[in-house]
Amino acid sequence: MAVSEFSVIARYFADVGAARPDVELGVGDDAALLTPPSGHDLAVGICSLAEGSHFPPLTPPAIVARQGFAIALSHLAASAADPAWLTLSLSMRDIDEGWLGAYSSGLDQVARDFGVRLVGGDTTAGHLCVTLHAHGFVPTGQAPDARGIRPGHLVYLTGILGKFQQSDGKSLPLSGGTWSSPSEPPIAQGLALRGIASGACSTAGGLARSLGRMLEISETGASLNASALPLAPALKASLAADGNWAAPLNQAWDTELCFTLPAQRGEELARRFAHLPASCTCIGTVEASQGLRCRLSDGTELAAMSS
Amino acid sequence: MAVSEFSVIARYFADVGAARPDVELGVGDDAALLTPPSGHDLAVGICSLAEGSHFPPLTPPAIVARQGFAIALSHLAASAADPAWLTLSLSMRDIDEGWLGAYSSGLDQVARDFGVRLVGGDTTAGHLCVTLHAHGFVPTGQAPDARGIRPGHLVYLTGILGKFQQSDGKSLPLSGGTWSSPSEPPIAQGLALRGIASGACSTAGGLARSLGRMLEISETGASLNASALPLAPALKASLAADGNWAAPLNQAWDTELCFTLPAQRGEELARRFAHLPASCTCIGTVEASQGLRCRLSDGTELAAMSS
Repeated sequence: MAVSEFSVIARYFADVGAARPDVELGVGDDAALLTPPSGHDLAVGICSLAEGSHFPPLTPPAIVARQGFAIALSHLAASAADPAWLTLSLSMRDIDEGWLGAYSSGLDQVARDFGVRLVGGDTTAGHLCVTLHAHGFVPTGQAPDARGIRPGHLVYLTGILGKFQQSDGKSLPLSGGTWSSPSEPPIAQGLALRGIASGACSTAGGLARSLGRMLEISETGASLNASALPLAPALKASLAADGNWAAPLNQAWDTELCFTLPAQRGEELARRFAHLPASCTCIGTVEASQGLRCRLSDGTELAAMSS
Repeated sequence: MAVSEFSVIARYFADVGAARPDVELGVGDDAALLTPPSGHDLAVGICSLAEGSHFPPLTPPAIVARQGFAIALSHLAASAADPAWLTLSLSMRDIDEGWLGAYSSGLDQVARDFGVRLVGGDTTAGHLCVTLHAHGFVPTGQAPDARGIRPGHLVYLTGILGKFQQSDGKSLPLSGGTWSSPSEPPIAQGLALRGIASGACSTAGGLARSLGRMLEISETGASLNASALPLAPALKASLAADGNWAAPLNQAWDTELCFTLPAQRGEELARRFAHLPASCTCIGTVEASQGLRCRLSDGTELAAMSS
């Protein structure tokens, strides 16, 4: 792949995403040269998707582009960052121009929608795998920081769980479903958390796992109210049929935000979300006792929480 | 690999490289949160190394770490940037703790040597491949920019070519050699170019290819003086035996810098390199006529330049 790396880059990746005045040197140069805004922290979010592990063969390349973009940006959103720049590391067995063209065009479209520019990348020969690094900015001191989570803070979730697989009612990509409807990155939701959320995480790795990890950092725990979890219709139906909470609590791929907030900030949060086309639901409370607990409305505690 | 991703990260990648006060949130959080210095541009350099394509199976993991680090930082050096942060995207078929421990320890050592911190990453299941993103800073307006290369500028090379394979006298990793002696990143050399070099590139992709690409950006060409090229002893010997210039001009893996400079900056350059344990040789001249030419001391032009 090395021989024609430059021509691949020139043909498919030289002009992907929105033009930005803060990109001095971009795709095609040795290193990207970029101008971060002053008074801001830089947030870097990463998503790697490998064929076979994260998406089935024959998944449309534009869907792979959109889903990787949504996940990488959901990590930025958890830092309340405004996205700016992308880099792409692409591994591919043989150069497949059809795949590259469709991937590049899918990435271009969604990157433009969010004002993001592809500024660099690298290609290698190997199993099909695409890694996106998303860079964004948040005013210094305004990003949620899990180390600030305290018992008594409330736990919130944006949007609904199970949206990702709702379109075909099937399960995860790995178990044979198709990615007919990629997720959208929750950037606006993340911006609404600036200066008020204590911690925030993307649900792309599964709600219980991501929240559990965030609570570990702050050495706290939480009780979730299972009946408060906002679920997509297909997920509600399967839950009604088998009573298995593993799906809503552990399934990956949804790119919502789970975050914690001091209770006195609840009104400010409601005001901010009133301007957004996205919902936000209180699903539990942070507690001093470590670990993640989830209770049904009758008080029963669900077993086998994965964190 | 997803299930134990957190434990892999915690065990092998939580504390790699030097501690830095500009890392707010690092490995283990959803996104890294970093504080760029004001008045600086951010440079991002990338290196992907895949087993089989870039290094043979059984290459010691610490060597893979050091070589990837050297190449990623050589791209930063071409922007005259000071390195600060690394992210790692790791693809591996099955979790091999022996490999991870040795890779992590090799990366830790070289990252500390250069004051660089690992701040985040991502792991996927797949063919063994490691991608390093290196982030660094250069005062605004001080980075070489190939768009400023003009006919009459001089072409320079740091160090010597063929150093990478000198230790065992063998050829490229791909043709069966071993990586017994990884390259060192030319960071100090890059810093010496601030404000005076017009263009700069890493030779990690091969001298002729990298220089040719840089000249394409500026729509110029160059004539190189073959007899001026500083060559490692093994490379000199093979050249004397077969007269084949393809090796010095096209071989990859050396992490030297090739750069261009207005002639009147030559004295300042010499003053700066006098303080460094690295050499710097004038190897040619930029010309208006596009393309890369290379002449022997008797005036013969070498055919088959790869750019």
